[in-house]
Amino acid sequence: MSKKLTIGMFGFGVVGQGLYDIIKTKKLNLEIKKFVIKNAGKTRSLPAELFSTNPNDILNDPEINTVVELIDDADAAFEITKKALTSGKNVVSANKKMIATHLQELTALQQQHGTSLLYEGAVCGSIPIIRNLEEYYDNELLHSVSGIFNGSSNYILSKIFNENQSYDTALKKAQELGFAETDPTLDVGGYDPKFKLTIVASHAYGLFVNPDQILNLGIDRLDNTDIRYAKEKNLKIKLIPLAKEVSNSEVVLYVLPKFISKDSILFNVENENNGVLVKAAFADEQFFYGKGAGGHPTGSAVLSDITALRYDYRYEYKKHLDAQELRYTTNVDIKVYFRYTDENILENIAFKNISERFYGEDYKYVIGHLNLQEIIDKRELINQPGYFLAEIA
Amino acid sequence: MSKKLTIGMFGFGVVGQGLYDIIKTKKLNLEIKKFVIKNAGKTRSLPAELFSTNPNDILNDPEINTVVELIDDADAAFEITKKALTSGKNVVSANKKMIATHLQELTALQQQHGTSLLYEGAVCGSIPIIRNLEEYYDNELLHSVSGIFNGSSNYILSKIFNENQSYDTALKKAQELGFAETDPTLDVGGYDPKFKLTIVASHAYGLFVNPDQILNLGIDRLDNTDIRYAKEKNLKIKLIPLAKEVSNSEVVLYVLPKFISKDSILFNVENENNGVLVKAAFADEQFFYGKGAGGHPTGSAVLSDITALRYDYRYEYKKHLDAQELRYTTNVDIKVYFRYTDENILENIAFKNISERFYGEDYKYVIGHLNLQEIIDKRELINQPGYFLAEIA
Repeated sequence: MSKKLTIGMFGFGVVGQGLYDIIKTKKLNLEIKKFVIKNAGKTRSLPAELFSTNPNDILNDPEINTVVELIDDADAAFEITKKALTSGKNVVSANKKMIATHLQELTALQQQHGTSLLYEGAVCGSIPIIRNLEEYYDNELLHSVSGIFNGSSNYILSKIFNENQSYDTALKKAQELGFAETDPTLDVGGYDPKFKLTIVASHAYGLFVNPDQILNLGIDRLDNTDIRYAKEKNLKIKLIPLAKEVSNSEVVLYVLPKFISKDSILFNVENENNGVLVKAAFADEQFFYGKGAGGHPTGSAVLSDITALRYDYRYEYKKHLDAQELRYTTNVDIKVYFRYTDENILENIAFKNISERFYGEDYKYVIGHLNLQEIIDKRELINQPGYFLAEIA
Repeated sequence: MSKKLTIGMFGFGVVGQGLYDIIKTKKLNLEIKKFVIKNAGKTRSLPAELFSTNPNDILNDPEINTVVELIDDADAAFEITKKALTSGKNVVSANKKMIATHLQELTALQQQHGTSLLYEGAVCGSIPIIRNLEEYYDNELLHSVSGIFNGSSNYILSKIFNENQSYDTALKKAQELGFAETDPTLDVGGYDPKFKLTIVASHAYGLFVNPDQILNLGIDRLDNTDIRYAKEKNLKIKLIPLAKEVSNSEVVLYVLPKFISKDSILFNVENENNGVLVKAAFADEQFFYGKGAGGHPTGSAVLSDITALRYDYRYEYKKHLDAQELRYTTNVDIKVYFRYTDENILENIAFKNISERFYGEDYKYVIGHLNLQEIIDKRELINQPGYFLAEIA
């Protein structure tokens, strides 16, 4: 039935520890033979002979058939994953940046060497979205996949909208609680949800797009005027990644702050929670909600991948095999709210159909349509201090 | 890779038609060879030679390797499913009553004959809960699975709580819209969600329990006094099936109306939508939301099962194989609100820890704890006109 896994694990941080805690409580047919860590000096809760600082103690051990990679450094993680897949070992990873950036090559390596790379823990913690896109929605016509993919910016936005905190206070609190990654820009700048979006897009639409080619604007330019604007209209601002079919052959992908009304199921996703909203032709609106981060939720997703490997599970990337291929496009108009300081900027940004203009003592804004490619081209201009752009329904 | 499926389908109602619509739009490696229907006289949108009234035209056709069973009659569906599984055909069914009632025998038949029976469409329409319990939470310690499993009673409750309609008006409207099953008691009496709960419990906890042994009380005794009580306290009433581990070895199962506060994610599940809430030790709170019924959502789940059969997918019933077996118990105390007419009834029902008593001109109620077995034993007394019981947090 199930095959015995002998595991080598890279990293013993919050997720690794969470995973170890989970495995301890279960009688599963698996053994962790070795942990490779960076810092040999730290005191560990487990016997010293389990630890090593030499990656080859895992990669060259023929007994180890499964590599679990839980380190921060995306480049090092890629080297480990490549070597492992090439030498016949299956890999479980939670490194969203590494996977998003190298997915095409990693898919080819799996095919070439008959190995399997699973990464449910990389996207929205414990929410089984990759597995569901891969297995369950493999024949569904998906209109869009969106949601709240980043727990720390969502936590900050919840504090702002529900507890009237300022952006800075909320950010600080999120960092204290460990909800923010090492560099807050990854989260509040929308990079982290973009990596997850890239992975989702691959399983939803069979697209390989380099994250560098996808627009992300974050919540780091949000200020009290924008918050007041939203509150006056009973809206919240959420940071929303979106993958959407815009024609039979084209898909758009972007991450933008968005004004959300209480009609949306995303309105009530608060704090560090994540939610994934799948709109499909026949299944209609489907929503998956859960803890997006943390040692135990992510550990739970990683464990689910590990145990699936006992049954030789692998992603089939079925959407990539579809005859009718979809292309990534940036040619779509998006309705946005744009708060600005200097009037002259509007001469340099090609707004269409401006529906509102506001001039106040404190701030000015315009509401109108912008082409996605125009936002990408003018990103530096739009994303400077004193300016804030958000999608508006 | 994928195997070609030749399908015989029983029934051509709203789900069958929905399914046919979906298959039409896709290039899948599958063919519907024959529909067996009850009423030969009806005009159909498809060629007449596709239809037959003789079940053997499907069951005895060696070319047909897949039976899709979408009929209402649970007994007839069971006979069809048994014959098909025994003669080497895989089966997809959406008949919750049939599956809930015969699951143990059906599981044995699959094992014995190496065939596969899939039934995602039987539980909460398009929400892939069985697949996720089976595949993704197979090693998770599940504290509980609950939610809103019945679209028509939820629709009625939404009309009552959001639009101030009376129970009777709302029920009528639900029937007009086709959200209610042929017999409304199935829905509003809590039988339909109980069948789904039975199936869920099997995949979550490895339990085979006959639905007859599980308590279900519905919303059919709800009246304006109960609604007023809930509204005064900013609560809603929802019909909630629950499977919950109460000790290391025991699980309770029941369906009861329940007062829900806005802190619960189920508070915002409105109208005909369904939601499944999974509480797990490591993944924490997970929530799945979607359309619970209707031709297309259910058709989408059935299609997903059909296409999974192309890859010889089968439920492994892993929880049933676990060494440490769980038992079904009815020995648990539940905190309830009980509205009554005749004071004497309280002498016949063994309440514990009564925390509130109310005597009014219009109605009387008591809040206290009742043992689940006591509710089962006194079901007739509790569920008579003029009385209403609901769980309270």
